Amino acid sequence: MTAPENSVASPNREDIRDFYDAYFDALDEGRLEEWPDFFVEDCLYRIIPRENYDAGHGQCLIQGDSKGMLTDRIRAILSTQVYAPRYCRRFYSGLRVINRNGRDLETKQNVLAIHTLISQPSKILGCGIGRDRLTLTDSGRLKFVERTVVLDTEIIDNTIIYPI
Amino acid sequence: MTAPENSVASPNREDIRDFYDAYFDALDEGRLEEWPDFFVEDCLYRIIPRENYDAGHGQCLIQGDSKGMLTDRIRAILSTQVYAPRYCRRFYSGLRVINRNGRDLETKQNVLAIHTLISQPSKILGCGIGRDRLTLTDSGRLKFVERTVVLDTEIIDNTIIYPI
Amino acid sequence: MTAPENSVASPNREDIRDFYDAYFDALDEGRLEEWPDFFVEDCLYRIIPRENYDAGHGQCLIQGDSKGMLTDRIRAILSTQVYAPRYCRRFYSGLRVINRNGRDLETKQNVLAIHTLISQPSKILGCGIGRDRLTLTDSGRLKFVERTVVLDTEIIDNTIIYPI
Repeated sequence: MTAPENSVASPNREDIRDFYDAYFDALDEGRLEEWPDFFVEDCLYRIIPRENYDAGHGQCLIQGDSKGMLTDRIRAILSTQVYAPRYCRRFYSGLRVINRNGRDLETKQNVLAIHTLISQPSKILGCGIGRDRLTLTDSGRLKFVERTVVLDTEIIDNTIIYPI
Repeated sequence: MTAPENSVASPNREDIRDFYDAYFDALDEGRLEEWPDFFVEDCLYRIIPRENYDAGHGQCLIQGDSKGMLTDRIRAILSTQVYAPRYCRRFYSGLRVINRNGRDLETKQNVLAIHTLISQPSKILGCGIGRDRLTLTDSGRLKFVERTVVLDTEIIDNTIIYPI
Repeated sequence: MTAPENSVASPNREDIRDFYDAYFDALDEGRLEEWPDFFVEDCLYRIIPRENYDAGHGQCLIQGDSKGMLTDRIRAILSTQVYAPRYCRRFYSGLRVINRNGRDLETKQNVLAIHTLISQPSKILGCGIGRDRLTLTDSGRLKFVERTVVLDTEIIDNTIIYPI
């Protein structure tokens, strides 16, 4: 499945930045149906509290082990949601490439998610770090192989959790 | 007024980033008198709640239809303000160029405005997205043709609203 | 101690961004013992309230005048701290190079520090601006000659103050 390394142009920083910008844009603008397509078929998406992560426990707030599971999750969110009950907007900082191997990359970035309920001030929903593995697919698009969001914030509003 | 496209070097990402860095720096540091000069003469500046924007309503919190109106607004703020009653600092994320046409650009970026009243903790003033049109002027400077800040945050302190 | 300017490649934007990413990463991940090594021996680190800074007063919340003092400070924090009482994560925006002179640089950047106490929502710890002087050392590494964090936020939790 992997082409010889020398046949692939490794994505540069701007390509990687573009990927994250497009990813957060889709989520911020509420185009949740686009979310699964940022992942390869055989993927892992997790939101895990930092305490568990640091202690080596795998217990997650959310976990999806395939693109199909991510699609199911979005369907569930969209079907239970009343129209625009809240907005969520994501800010990221310190996007770092920590490993490169041909068309595969490891990255991390700080994430701050702000949510706004109708007629209320904007508040911090959660704060943490994305620890990701990306790959450049045969079609030349970057996609997540894994996205693990390690959340400093322990208490998340016990409402529907949106992707981060 | 527009030169043939091939005679103009389209601004690159770093030029655009520099423009926004200078813009937010002027505002964060309280050099409000510099604000209008980030706009062309015949410009549009708006702050609009997301609900109105998404519904196609034009009702804005703030609107200025020319550089002269922006200058008037700043004069009003500066004349009513007691010395340093609060600080406001802007964080942006995900600066994207979504369209280019010669020397004209469309961009967007998430914005988080934090304000701090004397002797109080820092708080979120507002959270939203800038949806902008820029142009490279004949003098080689980038300027806003339009800046529309769509705010997720509905409730803004009913005090003087600073530019974002 | 300074090599002739033309023998040194001035750090580019990505080098500078990498430096800050590594700096904030070390702090966010709690590797405080790495902190002093981001500074040259004869350095200045300060956190100063904006009111004092704007008024030209030098009174600081924290001040270290040498790498040795920074090391002492970290030792004090590490010895008094119970395990993981809180997390602190830093977001920066608008990293600008405002002056270059051979291997010396002046930069500034907005900083938002978010902290999370166990079992509580994440909150804004402080908001301000880093006003820094960097140098490219003989070993080819960027280091702080001075880092002055000017804080808009006046009230800081009266607990141990972490570096920003």
